[in-house]
Amino acid sequence: MTDTLKIADKTFRSRLFTGTGKFSSSKLMQEAIVASESELVTVALKRVDLHSTCDDILMHLKQDHINLLPNTSGVRTAKEAVFAAQLAREALQTNWIKLEIHPDPKYLLPDPIETLKATEILVKEGFIVMPYINADPVLCKRLEDVGAQCVMPLGAPIGSNKGLITKDFLKIIMEQSKVPVIVDAGIGAPSHAAYAMELGADAVLVNTAIAVSKNPVQMGIAFKMAVQAGRLAYQAKLAEVNQYAEASSPLTSFLNE
Amino acid sequence: MTDTLKIADKTFRSRLFTGTGKFSSSKLMQEAIVASESELVTVALKRVDLHSTCDDILMHLKQDHINLLPNTSGVRTAKEAVFAAQLAREALQTNWIKLEIHPDPKYLLPDPIETLKATEILVKEGFIVMPYINADPVLCKRLEDVGAQCVMPLGAPIGSNKGLITKDFLKIIMEQSKVPVIVDAGIGAPSHAAYAMELGADAVLVNTAIAVSKNPVQMGIAFKMAVQAGRLAYQAKLAEVNQYAEASSPLTSFLNE
Amino acid sequence: MTDTLKIADKTFRSRLFTGTGKFSSSKLMQEAIVASESELVTVALKRVDLHSTCDDILMHLKQDHINLLPNTSGVRTAKEAVFAAQLAREALQTNWIKLEIHPDPKYLLPDPIETLKATEILVKEGFIVMPYINADPVLCKRLEDVGAQCVMPLGAPIGSNKGLITKDFLKIIMEQSKVPVIVDAGIGAPSHAAYAMELGADAVLVNTAIAVSKNPVQMGIAFKMAVQAGRLAYQAKLAEVNQYAEASSPLTSFLNE
Amino acid sequence: MTDTLKIADKTFRSRLFTGTGKFSSSKLMQEAIVASESELVTVALKRVDLHSTCDDILMHLKQDHINLLPNTSGVRTAKEAVFAAQLAREALQTNWIKLEIHPDPKYLLPDPIETLKATEILVKEGFIVMPYINADPVLCKRLEDVGAQCVMPLGAPIGSNKGLITKDFLKIIMEQSKVPVIVDAGIGAPSHAAYAMELGADAVLVNTAIAVSKNPVQMGIAFKMAVQAGRLAYQAKLAEVNQYAEASSPLTSFLNE
Repeated sequence: MTDTLKIADKTFRSRLFTGTGKFSSSKLMQEAIVASESELVTVALKRVDLHSTCDDILMHLKQDHINLLPNTSGVRTAKEAVFAAQLAREALQTNWIKLEIHPDPKYLLPDPIETLKATEILVKEGFIVMPYINADPVLCKRLEDVGAQCVMPLGAPIGSNKGLITKDFLKIIMEQSKVPVIVDAGIGAPSHAAYAMELGADAVLVNTAIAVSKNPVQMGIAFKMAVQAGRLAYQAKLAEVNQYAEASSPLTSFLNE
Repeated sequence: MTDTLKIADKTFRSRLFTGTGKFSSSKLMQEAIVASESELVTVALKRVDLHSTCDDILMHLKQDHINLLPNTSGVRTAKEAVFAAQLAREALQTNWIKLEIHPDPKYLLPDPIETLKATEILVKEGFIVMPYINADPVLCKRLEDVGAQCVMPLGAPIGSNKGLITKDFLKIIMEQSKVPVIVDAGIGAPSHAAYAMELGADAVLVNTAIAVSKNPVQMGIAFKMAVQAGRLAYQAKLAEVNQYAEASSPLTSFLNE
Repeated sequence: MTDTLKIADKTFRSRLFTGTGKFSSSKLMQEAIVASESELVTVALKRVDLHSTCDDILMHLKQDHINLLPNTSGVRTAKEAVFAAQLAREALQTNWIKLEIHPDPKYLLPDPIETLKATEILVKEGFIVMPYINADPVLCKRLEDVGAQCVMPLGAPIGSNKGLITKDFLKIIMEQSKVPVIVDAGIGAPSHAAYAMELGADAVLVNTAIAVSKNPVQMGIAFKMAVQAGRLAYQAKLAEVNQYAEASSPLTSFLNE
Repeated sequence: MTDTLKIADKTFRSRLFTGTGKFSSSKLMQEAIVASESELVTVALKRVDLHSTCDDILMHLKQDHINLLPNTSGVRTAKEAVFAAQLAREALQTNWIKLEIHPDPKYLLPDPIETLKATEILVKEGFIVMPYINADPVLCKRLEDVGAQCVMPLGAPIGSNKGLITKDFLKIIMEQSKVPVIVDAGIGAPSHAAYAMELGADAVLVNTAIAVSKNPVQMGIAFKMAVQAGRLAYQAKLAEVNQYAEASSPLTSFLNE
């Protein structure tokens, strides 16, 4: 199938992006990610050994042709984010960066002002910037305007597994955006991922829901299939939602004749 | 994989049941059903040529090893339903019957009283009865008590494509039922089908959403994958829904040290 | 205001019906009910002293011109319900009965079959029957056909405080019903009660949400106002829900001139 | 009652703020606003005759002791907003300003960056700034930090009448905010207004839903009551939402004895 997703200079066959946090072991993480067929995996800086490029697990993922996407999780300002991105570039030899700026320690919600500021700076420094943000359509346009390579609006607060509670705003973002829209945070079940794709998302990022499942490998497969199902449905066009019932079977009228 | 569904004497590998209504052509119907890998397909009596067992399309489906499930769509009373079931048994040489009794011509909602009455009679006459009903947990237990081989509660009014608006009641039904629970009506998107399976449904029945899509074959595949994804997720156990955020990435604290 | 509700031979100015269960004291119950201005209050048979007509609290409610509506809570069959209704008629000197038949001890969901059966019998015996049922439009029409004076579909499982999760079915019931529709069970907040009235309910029944509040008297007042607000809004007609935004303020264009 | 709301130097008995747009006549606007008992009413600059302080309608509202709150509806940048605020201050002799900056002509969604920038400037110039924004908890804290006197997060896109689709984020905002939280935009029915108040909002702003109703005066009363009902319920504390049913009536067990 030729339905691929292009971000900057990379082409992805899979529209399921994953993360490396919260798994009970590195081995299970690697198996689940491979099973999910994800080709882009976020890695927190803390996981990266900054004094060596030989982090074993990461090496394994790289050997599986999986792209590592360092994130700035934990930073609170644009300045910290820029510094973290530079460290990540050096450690992982990649100019891709997932920008996460959350001054709020409880809900970890992103800061729109600092995220725009950091995106502007990092784009100028040659980074491929993927900003994690609220489902704010105006902010998404502004990020696009300063050179973000995609936007990553949240579906619900991170780790809440509530699904796409921001769906009305996500629809507007998808309608307006000229860069890929990747739904991030809140996706707690394959049905949520399928729904995001049915709405027209270009990809989804799932971490917690796979990592904390009783069986992360099987859950990785479930998400892979759900994302594909949602994408196929989006292309094939879903039926309208109706207020009134419509019979699907022709009614048996001969009984009354 | 050994995860099969047993209803009466039949074993199904697929948990996606489909219908034959609303397709733009018989050829497209056949292709979509085959692509969906559905093994049980409802057929309205009207579609069956009662004077011959040689309805071409149905023959083709049978050759594809797809089981036909006649339905009583259009009947308004238990008496009419029993008569329709007997005709169907003769025409299609099957004692399986999907019971649909809807006196209401606008919303086509099922009648709980007549459905229970007809189920009792048909079970005594040797039918395998699959009743379509409201998501009414008490009615489901009563149908089980009189011998229904499964229950088929609705997710939303038929043809509405609204998804599982009855989810709170479906959960109770799944928790209590000793016979398979098949969610019928209202499923308008693969994400809805995945959700039904994640909740613990044994199968789903989808007709309109596949038939009226711009591309029924592709939509059939999408539903197949979504049902499998939901089932895998149900087995692997989903994470809890949380009120509060939880970071999925370890936070980068070195910046503050 | 002349907007009154008529059920059988009685006319109500208040569209808020209440209950007597779960209050921390009888005094608080009475104060809250009086504050709510409710004119119809359900009473469980157990609360009624069957050997005397002098239950003090009930006497007080009667002196406040509040109508007592005995309910059959706890019965599991039509036969038990008929017996309970007869006892209640004798004890409380009223032929009004709220019919609740729930064989299910955990969720207390109503039995559609037994409820229809009991309604038929009790109507013939001269009772004013107010049946508590699922939000099942076909069942509602059948109850109306056998002489129920109103229908009381549930909004959500009793005591769940989830609001009107059955709203799509309630709308159909309201559209079709020729007898008053009273939304019962599930109403956990004044906003839920207002919503039921906005949809077109003729009245709502609220018990738990008032009784278990920290301040039942104030909550009784809150529900009174919410019911009135919802009724006024229903009469004044609500604006349509729009997919797209519409400015409410004229846009300041002089800046661009 | 002593439950008043204080913003800057003003004290409000009513927690219902209203607007002046979309009414079919000025007379109806005035009557509806008076009936609603609202004490703060937004006015678009365009409505204000900038060459005279004698706009009749506005004079009437002032005589009814209703505070006028000019808004900057239609501006697209912080710069335009500051200019508009200065004009409004001169024309209406008030340093209160409702800040609305929406570069997006279709959905009229607010711009977080420009809104923060304008708030900072206007606070320094002595304005009482009431910013209209997305339901973005981090942005709300930043606005509070630069001196906004309240925050006005949206419930849904303006004019959509969809209610509080942002409720999960509104809850976080209410939990964190040290300035009043006023839910603005999206409130299409009294039940929505009651719900906002039950969640803990300090006030709501309603315009479209009153203005376009068939009977704006009656709708104004309905909103007034719903806001009061929601506030009373918030104070009296609502019952918890339960997964399982709980009987409200004591079950009649004597039948089984």
